[in-house]
Amino acid sequence: MESQLLDEIMLKAETLIEALPYIRDFNGKKVVVKYGGSAMLDEKLQESVIKDVALLKLVGMKPIIVHGGGKEISRWLGYMGKESQWVEGLRVTDEETMEVAEMVLNKVNKHLVQMMEKLGVRAAGISGKDGGTMICDKKTVKGKDIGFVGEVREVDSELIDTLLENDFVPIIAPIGMDDKFQAYNINADDAASAIAKCIRAEKLAFMTDIDGVCMDPDDPETLLSVLPVDEAKFLIKNGTISGGMIPKIKNCIDAVENGVSRVHILDGRQEHCLLLEFYTKKGIGTAIIGDHGDLYPHEQKR
Amino acid sequence: MESQLLDEIMLKAETLIEALPYIRDFNGKKVVVKYGGSAMLDEKLQESVIKDVALLKLVGMKPIIVHGGGKEISRWLGYMGKESQWVEGLRVTDEETMEVAEMVLNKVNKHLVQMMEKLGVRAAGISGKDGGTMICDKKTVKGKDIGFVGEVREVDSELIDTLLENDFVPIIAPIGMDDKFQAYNINADDAASAIAKCIRAEKLAFMTDIDGVCMDPDDPETLLSVLPVDEAKFLIKNGTISGGMIPKIKNCIDAVENGVSRVHILDGRQEHCLLLEFYTKKGIGTAIIGDHGDLYPHEQKR
Amino acid sequence: MESQLLDEIMLKAETLIEALPYIRDFNGKKVVVKYGGSAMLDEKLQESVIKDVALLKLVGMKPIIVHGGGKEISRWLGYMGKESQWVEGLRVTDEETMEVAEMVLNKVNKHLVQMMEKLGVRAAGISGKDGGTMICDKKTVKGKDIGFVGEVREVDSELIDTLLENDFVPIIAPIGMDDKFQAYNINADDAASAIAKCIRAEKLAFMTDIDGVCMDPDDPETLLSVLPVDEAKFLIKNGTISGGMIPKIKNCIDAVENGVSRVHILDGRQEHCLLLEFYTKKGIGTAIIGDHGDLYPHEQKR
Amino acid sequence: MESQLLDEIMLKAETLIEALPYIRDFNGKKVVVKYGGSAMLDEKLQESVIKDVALLKLVGMKPIIVHGGGKEISRWLGYMGKESQWVEGLRVTDEETMEVAEMVLNKVNKHLVQMMEKLGVRAAGISGKDGGTMICDKKTVKGKDIGFVGEVREVDSELIDTLLENDFVPIIAPIGMDDKFQAYNINADDAASAIAKCIRAEKLAFMTDIDGVCMDPDDPETLLSVLPVDEAKFLIKNGTISGGMIPKIKNCIDAVENGVSRVHILDGRQEHCLLLEFYTKKGIGTAIIGDHGDLYPHEQKR
Amino acid sequence: MESQLLDEIMLKAETLIEALPYIRDFNGKKVVVKYGGSAMLDEKLQESVIKDVALLKLVGMKPIIVHGGGKEISRWLGYMGKESQWVEGLRVTDEETMEVAEMVLNKVNKHLVQMMEKLGVRAAGISGKDGGTMICDKKTVKGKDIGFVGEVREVDSELIDTLLENDFVPIIAPIGMDDKFQAYNINADDAASAIAKCIRAEKLAFMTDIDGVCMDPDDPETLLSVLPVDEAKFLIKNGTISGGMIPKIKNCIDAVENGVSRVHILDGRQEHCLLLEFYTKKGIGTAIIGDHGDLYPHEQKR
Amino acid sequence: MESQLLDEIMLKAETLIEALPYIRDFNGKKVVVKYGGSAMLDEKLQESVIKDVALLKLVGMKPIIVHGGGKEISRWLGYMGKESQWVEGLRVTDEETMEVAEMVLNKVNKHLVQMMEKLGVRAAGISGKDGGTMICDKKTVKGKDIGFVGEVREVDSELIDTLLENDFVPIIAPIGMDDKFQAYNINADDAASAIAKCIRAEKLAFMTDIDGVCMDPDDPETLLSVLPVDEAKFLIKNGTISGGMIPKIKNCIDAVENGVSRVHILDGRQEHCLLLEFYTKKGIGTAIIGDHGDLYPHEQKR
Repeated sequence: MESQLLDEIMLKAETLIEALPYIRDFNGKKVVVKYGGSAMLDEKLQESVIKDVALLKLVGMKPIIVHGGGKEISRWLGYMGKESQWVEGLRVTDEETMEVAEMVLNKVNKHLVQMMEKLGVRAAGISGKDGGTMICDKKTVKGKDIGFVGEVREVDSELIDTLLENDFVPIIAPIGMDDKFQAYNINADDAASAIAKCIRAEKLAFMTDIDGVCMDPDDPETLLSVLPVDEAKFLIKNGTISGGMIPKIKNCIDAVENGVSRVHILDGRQEHCLLLEFYTKKGIGTAIIGDHGDLYPHEQKR
Repeated sequence: MESQLLDEIMLKAETLIEALPYIRDFNGKKVVVKYGGSAMLDEKLQESVIKDVALLKLVGMKPIIVHGGGKEISRWLGYMGKESQWVEGLRVTDEETMEVAEMVLNKVNKHLVQMMEKLGVRAAGISGKDGGTMICDKKTVKGKDIGFVGEVREVDSELIDTLLENDFVPIIAPIGMDDKFQAYNINADDAASAIAKCIRAEKLAFMTDIDGVCMDPDDPETLLSVLPVDEAKFLIKNGTISGGMIPKIKNCIDAVENGVSRVHILDGRQEHCLLLEFYTKKGIGTAIIGDHGDLYPHEQKR
Repeated sequence: MESQLLDEIMLKAETLIEALPYIRDFNGKKVVVKYGGSAMLDEKLQESVIKDVALLKLVGMKPIIVHGGGKEISRWLGYMGKESQWVEGLRVTDEETMEVAEMVLNKVNKHLVQMMEKLGVRAAGISGKDGGTMICDKKTVKGKDIGFVGEVREVDSELIDTLLENDFVPIIAPIGMDDKFQAYNINADDAASAIAKCIRAEKLAFMTDIDGVCMDPDDPETLLSVLPVDEAKFLIKNGTISGGMIPKIKNCIDAVENGVSRVHILDGRQEHCLLLEFYTKKGIGTAIIGDHGDLYPHEQKR
Repeated sequence: MESQLLDEIMLKAETLIEALPYIRDFNGKKVVVKYGGSAMLDEKLQESVIKDVALLKLVGMKPIIVHGGGKEISRWLGYMGKESQWVEGLRVTDEETMEVAEMVLNKVNKHLVQMMEKLGVRAAGISGKDGGTMICDKKTVKGKDIGFVGEVREVDSELIDTLLENDFVPIIAPIGMDDKFQAYNINADDAASAIAKCIRAEKLAFMTDIDGVCMDPDDPETLLSVLPVDEAKFLIKNGTISGGMIPKIKNCIDAVENGVSRVHILDGRQEHCLLLEFYTKKGIGTAIIGDHGDLYPHEQKR
Repeated sequence: MESQLLDEIMLKAETLIEALPYIRDFNGKKVVVKYGGSAMLDEKLQESVIKDVALLKLVGMKPIIVHGGGKEISRWLGYMGKESQWVEGLRVTDEETMEVAEMVLNKVNKHLVQMMEKLGVRAAGISGKDGGTMICDKKTVKGKDIGFVGEVREVDSELIDTLLENDFVPIIAPIGMDDKFQAYNINADDAASAIAKCIRAEKLAFMTDIDGVCMDPDDPETLLSVLPVDEAKFLIKNGTISGGMIPKIKNCIDAVENGVSRVHILDGRQEHCLLLEFYTKKGIGTAIIGDHGDLYPHEQKR
Repeated sequence: MESQLLDEIMLKAETLIEALPYIRDFNGKKVVVKYGGSAMLDEKLQESVIKDVALLKLVGMKPIIVHGGGKEISRWLGYMGKESQWVEGLRVTDEETMEVAEMVLNKVNKHLVQMMEKLGVRAAGISGKDGGTMICDKKTVKGKDIGFVGEVREVDSELIDTLLENDFVPIIAPIGMDDKFQAYNINADDAASAIAKCIRAEKLAFMTDIDGVCMDPDDPETLLSVLPVDEAKFLIKNGTISGGMIPKIKNCIDAVENGVSRVHILDGRQEHCLLLEFYTKKGIGTAIIGDHGDLYPHEQKR
């Protein structure tokens, strides 16, 4: 064998070996991936996300995908000649909008199933309606009725558990029902977080359009690899974390304080961001951890 | 207690007792219900179907619903300003049509899930994509390409089995994938039949817009309660069964000859037609049975 | 189909549908039926009781029958030329009487098994000796030795559990053993109650020769459908419940306070009293419930 | 420790060690013991039988007892002033006789349960009615109707299996039901044999009032320890086995030819005959074996 | 059969029957046997120990053997021309000594496996390295480094449990690893005790070269059959237990106080000492019990 | 993040993704690795082998190691002042040699266990004695007695299966026992092959000191990546495969013809040869496959 080729394949072997301690530590652990943002829009990124999740499954983790609808909902509403109103960043959702939103989310859902199946990994696409998985309350914004926008009250993980135990990757559309079995649209971040807490996931990963948490938002060099909950609270207080980041980080803190070991904020625009964060020493995003959360023994940073 | 009231409730008790032998015989048996036609259009009929299936589940059967899209697909294509072409009764399905068909079928699917959950019975809505449940080939009609219309080649029942074993009612939209993981629309009758054969269902029930098989199609009094396969073949040969009924009955014969014990042709316009056919002596439709199929011991007719 | 016939069978379907919420709520729940009194003497009533229990089993409950010996024990003692003495309503039980009582109880036991098997439902007849199911102490009445009359000290439900898990209906004769493995006769009410408490049954139903608990014992119109434990205690205190009813009701209160959700006092002379009480809105007897016992969500009264 | 005492206890240890290969070979194996004849009449022998069976259970076998009624049936018929008629050694069994027979058999049944429980070994007493264990046909003798005397047609071992798997010793009274669920009395030898064949027992042991099979019936020294099936057939043919022994031996041959490894004919009058036959080198009765049945590796004779 | 022979075999049957209550009480219970001392040196004694343990297994206990290396380690060091130094009774263990010790212990280990397999009982020989069963710390004696002599810090019983559940007798060599996966030699008494505590064994038996605990060490007649923990502590205090017995008895007390029901000190020089102690009324050694430890119900002394 | 670093870690992600189809195809499959030759002598190679096997385990395969003793046996015999005689490449094995060989093999065995445990992967070291895993016959060479050299007659995989099911990596020393439980030394290649056939392994990999099978042994460029069985037979016939390779290849052919899907001949001197052969497209050794063995769908060569 030529020496150059040999060097190359040896490098491959070493990469696999480098991943060994992570694979071992995460074996059998549940990870919820919130999939949304830019990572949904580009076909190559889509494929990279699905491949990453497939690999997580194949090396022994139990991944679950919770996805949004990307820009598809607006596009389909457009076809229907419908324009949305927005209140505090939330789409006012009348019955027709709800119908379209659900159709689009299910379309995306089955598309992701299809991609996963194509890789030879079994997937099952459900929404929060199936098995009564997500029960929600109507959300009001400052007393204003914004229609069928729900807020998760309770997660019943029996269907998710059934799928995981039988080796299917659950792919979940963020639709819920209230006590009267009316359908509601749910924010995908909230849905992912509620599910991760209920099943006590080891990890919850948010694919976002930012690098992670930076001390100076304008300087990617100031990215925090690890952010303990206490420090996160302090950074909110002193204004380092501000604006739209506040609810996101509060969501993370809540998850860590309610049974999730680590919440990862990742840049979904980076191909294979999940693998890079989970299976390399350096990682690429920010991991929010409990204050007394021991670092994994083989880790330098996390 | 007043005597009239007493009479009335005694009648109720007797009805429950009359159902006892059927409940016993069907305990743990799988039944595939093809739900379509008029029964999908009327809200009261919808509720009646879902209640019947819920009851089948509660008294110990393992029901599975395979549904069509009713008239919704055309309605939504209309919204999009799209008109369909038809070849031999099959809709020519281009990419856009396929996309709409799938969205509508998933919408119907989740609506049925919602109704079942409302009755307190757990349901999970899937399509043939999930778990790679239905693999299909492209269908051509007389050599003509009619687009993404598929014909089931293989059913992998692992996801269905998982759901049944864990006490969920599977509700299935007739979408499949080919070897290249391209989505295809499948005729719901064919999907129901393929699934029933694969899981060796005790019963396969088609909800149709006719009474059942009649010796004289114009005289409902000539309805055949039980129709052995050999006799069915003879009736096709001698012209008693003709026209659009021929492929339907051939489908039934095929199912009975490949592992399904009984195929029921029911009038979906009749409320509670499933209960009436399965749990009363007289029944209301036509049951196609194998030639040597023993009648249930307690039956007079069937 | 003739319209009159159709109306009739539609009524049947609706009765089945009416039972749906109860069937769902009681699914997998254990119910102990104390079978005795007049319901044992009439052949038609016997059949009605066994059919009811068979149906409970078939729709998903886990019924257990505990039975008495009716008038058969006295009849057989008569054959033997033996006359019984009674102390405070309890038969003085010498060795010979004990032998006859056990033989008769086992005869009744196997007769009930036979009836249940005839309906196609698997049953297994045991006594409290089998598997050491009932351990008892000798009972004395006011210091008087009344022979082999026992009082349950401990129930070991392993054999009952084994039978239930393997889909047999346990039918139990009220015979126990003391620490020295001497056989004792046990009051069937006490046996049923002890077993129901041990297995934490959802329901315990006593088939009696009265309508239920009435505010005015002479007026069946004053029947109490639901009687919370606190109210029951008050009715004993103020004398509404009196005489022979007191120990019966105290037994019920004890059961509800020790793990049984509801105790039903039913008129065994009424055909299908079990079905009518469990599966219709109105019910026909009195249900003793815990004070904070939530009504089943679909119930008006109970 | 005194040397004499030491010798004595060393002898005990050696006896346990001698049993080691048999205990190992029979571990988990099913053995059906037909218990009847003289061994039922003497209290000391009764205790010895029950202790032996308890020990079989404790060292890992799965024993099942099938018992007769001994002389009790006649005694109780006597109490009732009833005299039996006999046809070819079978009691003509009218309805009243059947009733008494069943009561007595159940009485014996529960007495054996009680003795086994006293030794701390769990037992469950059933008859062939329970779980529909024994289905039988009416027996006629030379065309003569002899009443409710049955002949086993089919054994359903589900209840027996359930009890064995859950560590109860099944004790079985030889009562069966015909297709119409009428009770019948069954010969205990036949019942034991039918059950042993159905569950493919390793061993079937008949406790009789003879030593075993002897070449010269009058000389116990001619006892055959092992009798291969072919030889047994020859001995019947040449008249060595004659009279009442013929049906017994044919029964044994039938069992060996239908799934039972060994049938043992033991002298029930000999205390601990089961242990002595199974756990000592020499044995004490006759073992009927298949012709190609390998001897257990550690055996000299058997 | 000759009467003398009959007497002899009856005696055997009675011995088996005498063992019945013990077999019943110990069924499924775990027992750790520390095998060492003189019992390892004599071939006949070796065979007796292995047979005893095999029988314990066959009558339903779950035995585990922890063994030492006897005089073999010194013998092999001799071959190598190596002489050992001793500090406070512990061998100073340099790397070479450790290597030899491990080789010898594994040799003994596999020899015991071989003997057990020869009796037809499945065994699996492991050391504390396998499955990370024993994690230890380096032991120092009065601040002196004595090399690779370890002291058990933690037992992980997963491999032992796996073997027990699958019906293998675990035979364990007392080698452990420290946190850096360096091998250490462990005192066999300590290893047996640590394992017994971790798996909450019913019994822990030490085979020693003494009779048991005697009030007067020079008079075997003063042997204590049963020694409650409190009394043992008192005997240490008042000097009755002295010298080398003190750490041994403290080890026993510690085991009883940490989950082991009984610790037996047995004379390994006595053939079948395990059977005699466990299955006869009198026993032959000393059983250390908890103060409130109930005697087994059938026991006179223990 | 710097672009160069990013490139590097992206390469890592892609390597993981490249392995995805292989990881998926081999999930849950058993692979037997024969570990011997040069790969045992160099510490770095040792570590590489153990890491590779650990990774196989972590990504879902079920690996089993069968190892030889390398040059250690001779070294220890040397310590003992013992010199070996050889017959046809087999060491004449007298009792003393056997003792030393077993000790050394067990030493190597536990050392491998220790290395695997250090990586956080559970391992259990056994020999063919444990659980009676390998039963062998004495081997004679041309009628000459060469002592305790065995040839595998039968593999009982129960202990191996138990370990695999409970997530331990079995590491096996090639020692067996004959029918009289005498220990024998077995050639490690033969042991690996016999075990692989018995458990119907997906893969059997031999670590050798050659590159694989080359058309021209002197030119590594002529390496055959895939060698169908028929072709292998032809190459033996025409002399391409010759000398010491013949028995090795015959062993491979035999394995493929008896239930093993693929046998890999690998160069153990190449670091990470297992990973490179199994998880990269190109592979590095020779895979012997059945003639009709389908290539894995994603493979170019294999």
